[in-house]
Amino acid sequence: MRIGIDIGGTKIVAGLVDITGKVVARKRILVGHNKSYLIVRDAIIMLVRDILSENNIHTESLERIGVASAGQIDSGFNKIIFSPNLGWRNVPLRDDFEAALKVHAFVDNDVNAATYGEWRFGAARGADNVLGVFIGTGVGGGIIIRGKVYRGSYNAGAEIGHIILNPFGYPCNCGNTGCFETYCGGGYIVERVKKHIKSGYRGKVWELIDGNIDSLNAGHVEYGATLGDDLCETVWTEVLEYLGAGLASLANLLNPEVIVLGGGVTYGTRHLIEDVKPIMKKRAMAASLKNMKLVKAKLKEDAAIIGAAFIEP
Amino acid sequence: MRIGIDIGGTKIVAGLVDITGKVVARKRILVGHNKSYLIVRDAIIMLVRDILSENNIHTESLERIGVASAGQIDSGFNKIIFSPNLGWRNVPLRDDFEAALKVHAFVDNDVNAATYGEWRFGAARGADNVLGVFIGTGVGGGIIIRGKVYRGSYNAGAEIGHIILNPFGYPCNCGNTGCFETYCGGGYIVERVKKHIKSGYRGKVWELIDGNIDSLNAGHVEYGATLGDDLCETVWTEVLEYLGAGLASLANLLNPEVIVLGGGVTYGTRHLIEDVKPIMKKRAMAASLKNMKLVKAKLKEDAAIIGAAFIEP
Repeated sequence: MRIGIDIGGTKIVAGLVDITGKVVARKRILVGHNKSYLIVRDAIIMLVRDILSENNIHTESLERIGVASAGQIDSGFNKIIFSPNLGWRNVPLRDDFEAALKVHAFVDNDVNAATYGEWRFGAARGADNVLGVFIGTGVGGGIIIRGKVYRGSYNAGAEIGHIILNPFGYPCNCGNTGCFETYCGGGYIVERVKKHIKSGYRGKVWELIDGNIDSLNAGHVEYGATLGDDLCETVWTEVLEYLGAGLASLANLLNPEVIVLGGGVTYGTRHLIEDVKPIMKKRAMAASLKNMKLVKAKLKEDAAIIGAAFIEP
Repeated sequence: MRIGIDIGGTKIVAGLVDITGKVVARKRILVGHNKSYLIVRDAIIMLVRDILSENNIHTESLERIGVASAGQIDSGFNKIIFSPNLGWRNVPLRDDFEAALKVHAFVDNDVNAATYGEWRFGAARGADNVLGVFIGTGVGGGIIIRGKVYRGSYNAGAEIGHIILNPFGYPCNCGNTGCFETYCGGGYIVERVKKHIKSGYRGKVWELIDGNIDSLNAGHVEYGATLGDDLCETVWTEVLEYLGAGLASLANLLNPEVIVLGGGVTYGTRHLIEDVKPIMKKRAMAASLKNMKLVKAKLKEDAAIIGAAFIEP
C-alpha cells in the first residue's frame, strides 16, 4: 500500500492507494486560518496516522508516502521551495515525514504527479510521450517524454500555463503578459465576467447564478454562451480560440501521442473537449496531429494523489 | 571518416568529417532548374564519389553518409516524406545511397541534424537538454532531451517555428496564423519591409540597399533600425519582442540548459542575441531562466553537415 497526499490551498486530501492505482480509502482536512508550516505539517501527519489506523495498515507495510503540492519542488524531492497557496518557503516535507512516520517519502509538484497518474493508471496509459494540461484556477501541466516525467534541467520545466499566446495580451500573475493561463485559467475567465457584472451587466448569466456573483464559475460561462448571453459568448469564444491555439502550439512542438485535459474547468464544463478539437485541428500541422489523441483525464480529483503515490524521479 | 550532406533548395554541400567533428574537405553543387529526384540524387552520388577520390578515401573506410534535408523524414531515417524546397515526396535516399555507394547511410531533418551537431561538437556541448532555434527564411528547431534528439511520437516534433505567438497574427505558410516564424523568419521580415518599399517608402534602408530591393535581408533591417529608419525600427522592434517572447515561452515550457540560436538571420545581424536577452528575461519565469544560457551557434553553415554525419536515432 501507498499513501498519496494532495496539498491544496484550502484542503488537504490523503488517499490510501493500492498497487493497481485504486484509492481504497480517503480522508481530508481543511486548512484553517493559520497556514504556518509546522501546524499544517503536524495536521497532515495526524491525518496519515488516522487513515492508517482506520484501515489497519502498519507503517512497516507502507511502501511510500507521496506528496503532491503546487509550487516549485527541489531536485532532491524533499523541499517545497515555494508554495504560492500556503506561502511556505524551503520546507523539508520529505525529511519531516520520514522522521515522524518512518516511511519512505517523496515530494513532487501536483501537476507532475497528476500527469504521471494519468499516464500510469488513467487516460494516457501506454503512451511514450504525453502532455497533461490541467485547467483549474490557473493552468498547470506535466510532460512525459519516453515514459519518464520531464522536469526540465533544473526542475523548473513544464510550465505549460506560461507559454505565451500573445505577448501583448492580459497581465499574468507571473509578471509577464499573455500567458496561456490568462486566457484559459478559470480564475481569469471568471474575473473577466465578474468585472462586467460588477459594472452592471445583466444577462442570462445573472439568472444562472441567481445573482450570487461569488458562485460564478467557468461552467456558468460556457452554459451562458450556449444560452446566447452576449458577455459569456464573447468570453467563452476567446477561451476556446486560445485553448485551441495553445494545444496546437504544444502539438507542433512536442508531437505527443496523447494530450490529457484535466482540472476543474475541464470537469465543470460540458463540451470543452469537443468544442476545442476542431480549433486545434485547424491550427496544428497535419503531421503533428496525426494519431494524436486529445482526451479528458480519467482519475479526476484523485490524479495527483495516485500520481504522488507512484511517481518516479 | 564520415560524409555529411546538407540538401538545400538551391545548393547541396557535402563535407568530409573527421572523428572530432571537423570538416576536413567540402564540395558543393548548385541545384539546377530541373530538381527532379533522380537527377539530383545522381548528382549527389557523383559529388560523394568526387570528394572521396580527391581525398583518397575508400568507401570501405567510410563509417557513414549522413544526409540532412528540410522537410519531414520517415521514422526509419530512409525517406524524405516531403521536401518543401525540392518538391520531393517519399524518396528513399538512404536505400538509394546505400545501393550505389555500399556505405551505411542515414537521413534526417536538417534542423535536427544542426542541433545535434551543436550539441555534440558546438555551442551546447555537455548539456542534457538543449533547444536549437535556427532562424533562416523560416524558423526551424531541434530538441535534445536527456542527451538524445527528441523527434516527437511520430517524427513530427520540434516544429519550433510553428508554436503560436499570436492566434490572430500574420498568416503562415503552414495554413495557421501567428506562428513564431511569421514574426521572426527572415523571409517574412524582408517581405514586410519590401511591401512598403514597393509602395514608395524611401528611408535610410533604401540607401543601405542602393535601391536594389532584391538584395534586402534581415541584416539591413536591423542596421536600418539602428540608423533611425522608421520602417526598419517598427519591423525590427516587433521581431525582437516576438523572438524574446518565443524564447521565454520555450524556456518556461522546457527549461533547457542551453538555447542555441543559429541560421542566416542570426549570423547576418549584429546584435540579435544581446538585444533579445533582456526581452526574454523580462518575460520568462525566473526559475526557468536560472542557469540557462542563450548562445550563438558555433558551427555556422557546417552544423547540419557535421550533425548529419553523427546524429543517432
